[in-house]
Amino acid sequence: MIHAIIMAGGAGTRFWPASRRHRPKQFLDLADGRPLLRATFERVAPIVPADRIWVVSGQRTTEATRSLLAELPAENVLGEPSGRDTAACAGYAAHVVLSRDPEGVCVVLPADHLIGDEERLRSALATGARHVESQGGLLTFGVRPTRPETGYGYLKLGEPHSQIEGWRIHRLDGFVEKPDLATARTYAASDGYLWNSGMFAWRARDLLEEIRRQLPLLADGLQLIADALGHPSEASTLHDLYPRLPRTSIDFGVMEGARRRWTIPVDFTWSDVGSWPALAELLACDADGNVAQGRVLPIDALDNVLISEGPVVAAVDVEGVIVIATKDAVLVLPAASGQRVKEVVSRLEELGWDDVL
Amino acid sequence: MIHAIIMAGGAGTRFWPASRRHRPKQFLDLADGRPLLRATFERVAPIVPADRIWVVSGQRTTEATRSLLAELPAENVLGEPSGRDTAACAGYAAHVVLSRDPEGVCVVLPADHLIGDEERLRSALATGARHVESQGGLLTFGVRPTRPETGYGYLKLGEPHSQIEGWRIHRLDGFVEKPDLATARTYAASDGYLWNSGMFAWRARDLLEEIRRQLPLLADGLQLIADALGHPSEASTLHDLYPRLPRTSIDFGVMEGARRRWTIPVDFTWSDVGSWPALAELLACDADGNVAQGRVLPIDALDNVLISEGPVVAAVDVEGVIVIATKDAVLVLPAASGQRVKEVVSRLEELGWDDVL
Repeated sequence: MIHAIIMAGGAGTRFWPASRRHRPKQFLDLADGRPLLRATFERVAPIVPADRIWVVSGQRTTEATRSLLAELPAENVLGEPSGRDTAACAGYAAHVVLSRDPEGVCVVLPADHLIGDEERLRSALATGARHVESQGGLLTFGVRPTRPETGYGYLKLGEPHSQIEGWRIHRLDGFVEKPDLATARTYAASDGYLWNSGMFAWRARDLLEEIRRQLPLLADGLQLIADALGHPSEASTLHDLYPRLPRTSIDFGVMEGARRRWTIPVDFTWSDVGSWPALAELLACDADGNVAQGRVLPIDALDNVLISEGPVVAAVDVEGVIVIATKDAVLVLPAASGQRVKEVVSRLEELGWDDVL
Repeated sequence: MIHAIIMAGGAGTRFWPASRRHRPKQFLDLADGRPLLRATFERVAPIVPADRIWVVSGQRTTEATRSLLAELPAENVLGEPSGRDTAACAGYAAHVVLSRDPEGVCVVLPADHLIGDEERLRSALATGARHVESQGGLLTFGVRPTRPETGYGYLKLGEPHSQIEGWRIHRLDGFVEKPDLATARTYAASDGYLWNSGMFAWRARDLLEEIRRQLPLLADGLQLIADALGHPSEASTLHDLYPRLPRTSIDFGVMEGARRRWTIPVDFTWSDVGSWPALAELLACDADGNVAQGRVLPIDALDNVLISEGPVVAAVDVEGVIVIATKDAVLVLPAASGQRVKEVVSRLEELGWDDVL
């Protein structure tokens, strides 16, 4: 049976000051009136019943996740004692699925992305699940590039293998880290590369088998955690072992070396919304190019991103600037420096200004 | 006897968002740990007893003024029903003084300026008061220019007349509106021009005589208000007539055409703190040229003015920008546009965002 794994463990420091430790990015309503995590849940709910939707959250946000997704059984929200990257996260979830459903197939979704055509997404996910159910292997969904984006990783498309309901399933030839602009242009112009969406499909046991083969230390740790599932020691075992699991990503730690790899090229609008400027590109702007949300007042201001969760923000004679205001913190930086927000969060940690972290 | 008139009627829109309708500039602690009005009071208190210090305030801020200056008799805070510029303000105060003290001499001080050497100020004020007490006429205090400032009006220094305790009293030859830079350079390089500090001294009856001679409509209105002082109709008369008084400044409405005019050149540090950039010049900055007040965090930021009354403000990769944050409003603009804050306030009024006005 199909299960959905929503990976909701991100700290989301790139959206400070809107995102905080207790309200990371997946809890933000960045675009469509719903928190991103809620939107992710609602996207899969029509094809996966709630008792087979699993959310892996940071332990700090487990309760907030349960509140936001009240339809889920409480035990379907899995709290990671600490973030150990996506291989540990997906492996842990696969064990939980396997303990309920030995033939379980997982579709894996990051909690904090934006997707345009949700019907198409569901169709692609169902197709991917059907394919791995019958063929085995690990499958990733790749987005056809619409621009030479340097902020995403890419997938190298392999030979076509089969076709299900209009979706072509290809072999996956490999992963490419975020390219420079010249390389990204080549990729965007060719038909041979896709954006790595971070969405996957596999049978739970196939993923765990690949982890066992390629990452034995991770497999050992996960197995000890799995053995404790349903036992009185479940929580303490998780708490003791999870923080010591090896930290690696699904993409490079597991998929890159997997024996059977697939990809389905998809064509719906997709964004990982990785920064304030990336968000701004998805939002409507006024005649002066300003993205304005909340009570903001641009005067002779061009091409700015002005977002307020409360305070009035007046911006005069400025160009290409991002101003984000919450009730207790304000960020000002040029759009070109949009990737530096993480540094702000690091400095705030050094300063011990915990109330705004 | 000497009386001090503190003119505290300013709306202070140039310091939005720190200044508001109910907390105009004179209530802000911009530099030395005291609200500007409190500092003005404390500067004159050593030479003028509290019952002879008069504060003319907007009616909206009368109670706040009384709270801030608890040493003052309540009736010494005069509420203007609406702002009618400095000639009406000084004339009204002169009538109040005259009703108590027919020989009263007034030193007149704006409530929202910064002054360095307060001992020197008091010495100059006492000297000015002594001079006009014996010689009559209207006297202004002029600050020796230290730079070619285009943001101030200038006084044209006339012939020396006399000397009291080291202070030279000159004839005043006239007023000059804010000059362009070339003219300001000429003035700053010559010995013949002073900055118009907005501080004055005169006998109450001499001021009123000049108003009578030059501004008969204003004199008539003020006389009706004066006739009601101490009567049951005092408040209603003030309320009815004051808003209709002709609106003109002491400088151009009265001093410019006065028959006997004096000026005392003074050399203490003085600023009218007319804008955020003007304030910034008075404050200490860090090694990167940032003026930083409150919980502000500049990262690779040069020559900015970052002032917060509460929210954390992080500014990354910006230069020459002013960011002012209060709990409910944020202002972002280049230092070079520091004079445009009034426009922000006008736009907020148009938008009806009264909660931040």
